Amino acid sequence: MTSFFFECLGQDGAARTGLLHTGRGVIRTPAFMPVGTAGTVKAMLPESVKETGADILLGNTYHLMLRPGAERVAALGGLHRFMNWPHPILTDSGGFQVMSLSGLRKVTEDAVTFQSHIDGSTHVLSPERSMAIQDLLGSDIQMVLDECTPYPATQEVAQSSMALSMRWALRSKRAFRAVQGRGLFGIVQGSTFADLREQSAERLMEIGFDGYAVGGLAVGEGQEAMFETLDVTVPHLPQDRPRYLMGVGKPDDLVGAVARGIDMFDCVIPTRSGRNGQAFLKTGTLNLRNARHADANEPIDPNCRCPACRSYTRAYLHHLIKAEEILGAMLLTWHNLTVYQDLMADLRAAISGQGLAAFVHDFHAKRDANRD
Amino acid sequence: MTSFFFECLGQDGAARTGLLHTGRGVIRTPAFMPVGTAGTVKAMLPESVKETGADILLGNTYHLMLRPGAERVAALGGLHRFMNWPHPILTDSGGFQVMSLSGLRKVTEDAVTFQSHIDGSTHVLSPERSMAIQDLLGSDIQMVLDECTPYPATQEVAQSSMALSMRWALRSKRAFRAVQGRGLFGIVQGSTFADLREQSAERLMEIGFDGYAVGGLAVGEGQEAMFETLDVTVPHLPQDRPRYLMGVGKPDDLVGAVARGIDMFDCVIPTRSGRNGQAFLKTGTLNLRNARHADANEPIDPNCRCPACRSYTRAYLHHLIKAEEILGAMLLTWHNLTVYQDLMADLRAAISGQGLAAFVHDFHAKRDANRD
Repeated sequence: MTSFFFECLGQDGAARTGLLHTGRGVIRTPAFMPVGTAGTVKAMLPESVKETGADILLGNTYHLMLRPGAERVAALGGLHRFMNWPHPILTDSGGFQVMSLSGLRKVTEDAVTFQSHIDGSTHVLSPERSMAIQDLLGSDIQMVLDECTPYPATQEVAQSSMALSMRWALRSKRAFRAVQGRGLFGIVQGSTFADLREQSAERLMEIGFDGYAVGGLAVGEGQEAMFETLDVTVPHLPQDRPRYLMGVGKPDDLVGAVARGIDMFDCVIPTRSGRNGQAFLKTGTLNLRNARHADANEPIDPNCRCPACRSYTRAYLHHLIKAEEILGAMLLTWHNLTVYQDLMADLRAAISGQGLAAFVHDFHAKRDANRD
Repeated sequence: MTSFFFECLGQDGAARTGLLHTGRGVIRTPAFMPVGTAGTVKAMLPESVKETGADILLGNTYHLMLRPGAERVAALGGLHRFMNWPHPILTDSGGFQVMSLSGLRKVTEDAVTFQSHIDGSTHVLSPERSMAIQDLLGSDIQMVLDECTPYPATQEVAQSSMALSMRWALRSKRAFRAVQGRGLFGIVQGSTFADLREQSAERLMEIGFDGYAVGGLAVGEGQEAMFETLDVTVPHLPQDRPRYLMGVGKPDDLVGAVARGIDMFDCVIPTRSGRNGQAFLKTGTLNLRNARHADANEPIDPNCRCPACRSYTRAYLHHLIKAEEILGAMLLTWHNLTVYQDLMADLRAAISGQGLAAFVHDFHAKRDANRD
């Protein structure tokens, strides 16, 4: 079994490209992780997800603990086997979705108690339980349980929330069952306060993790504040470990964050917006619900390698979306994930070739010309 | 361009196996046609439909005329290109779904006027318009417009409805634009009355069609009455033309109808029930919503060649269905269409080998042992 480590292959400014080695395979970075919420990347066969270029998926601890249940998944051979994805999986801690999806919640020093959004049943999630669940799922990259600080927050609230997350990070590290080839990531919190972000990063490095995530962003602060927070956070993270910006984002968020030294991303945007009829272009988007596509006898992008672009017109995709046909969700999800993976491949190539600044400039120029 | 003709390769009792040659390809009979209602077999890529073993799809004139519209499909290159299915397509006339789906209807000698179930707009469907629409779609097998007689009907109502259908059949034949490689099928009506069915078949043969369908069945009369009607209808149809039982059915309906000389079928059962969590076994069914599958670490059928059975457990499929995940609909549709196509292949082989009686006996014995 390969051990878990990050191999940096090239740098261009703050941006890096490399390989994250795990026991279940190598992840090319910068990497975008499609979200497989409930044991499936919605509307996609896993072999199709792989075909788009994904090296790793994200699974949601919150969803999987509630349904089908972590012990059940373990008894069925683990999440990889359950969902037929033999490649790496990162699981979040469940904390973020407890806050955003569940009913009545109570956060104490010990744990968070919440009600399932599915059936109202009461559950408890502690750092130890989150680690146990992620271990039962068989996750390759596990995340510490943290409290995602609401935005906006006063410095006082952000400080106290961050401090709780740091105590939970230590408990998570202690509860993590280290298995060869698997890694545990800490999560920097501290809202948009530079000093808190620095303190959080320092504390996590004292504890020591296989990778470092930046959490508590993409929660309404806007792209500018997000980038500013990365600017004051990333320099405090170690060079030899992967950096993961959680829950981000749109293509221009990814481009800006990669330029600031981020290596990994996850986001529901390409999958969710695909199901809603929005197609990403290399730069810009297309709303296929729009009646102006009804007679458009051309693909979304003639240069795209995905099945939606190889074999179908915008008119057909418009029809599928209007008729609420499942095939519309299937094809647009496939397309959007392809666009995202191709963007990551382009970013990796640009960094390798010391051409990131030119790539970013070109990306913004084209994006501004292609708004739908 | 190949001309349109039926080549009988073998007979076993009343059952036949053969090849229906069309300009867009050969259809192995007995054939099951998956239903691609609105220009898509729901939850399936067309290449996956082909992989299940389907040689031909059915498209619904009613749905396609309302959305996206026949003229639009024609301008986009026809239905085959629109939906990326280069193989044969049979279109129905629209008549049946006007009766079952649309709002306020008025049937006159000339045409049926109805309101769209989508937006309430008023439309007129005459034999001539139905033929024009099917021609615009580019359909390989076109169906005459008929009135599907409601069940039950008095002999008087059934007689008058059948007579109208026969006058419409003649008008359809006259309006049909004959293109090399395409065929037009007549539809026998007459409810469950043997004399009316015979009269209808005789009248259609006088007009002359490339194939003959049996309509007005599977509308609540039950399997026994359906088979009795086939017994008094099929012997009046010509040996050298394909026979199509419309809207049928469950596997045991197909087996019984093939034994009575039917060559072609279409039905939404495998696709619709797949979306609802029902999986067909070689004989019998499995309701994957049932909690008893939650921990079942085995495929639906270890001998099935479909992706759902090759790579997933019943427990996973149960989870997908409970969580209303699109992948559940995708996998179960694929499975059910595979089971249907494999049944047709088995029937063709049984007829070729003069072993249909043994096959039917075995099928019923196993089915009775496998009810869920």
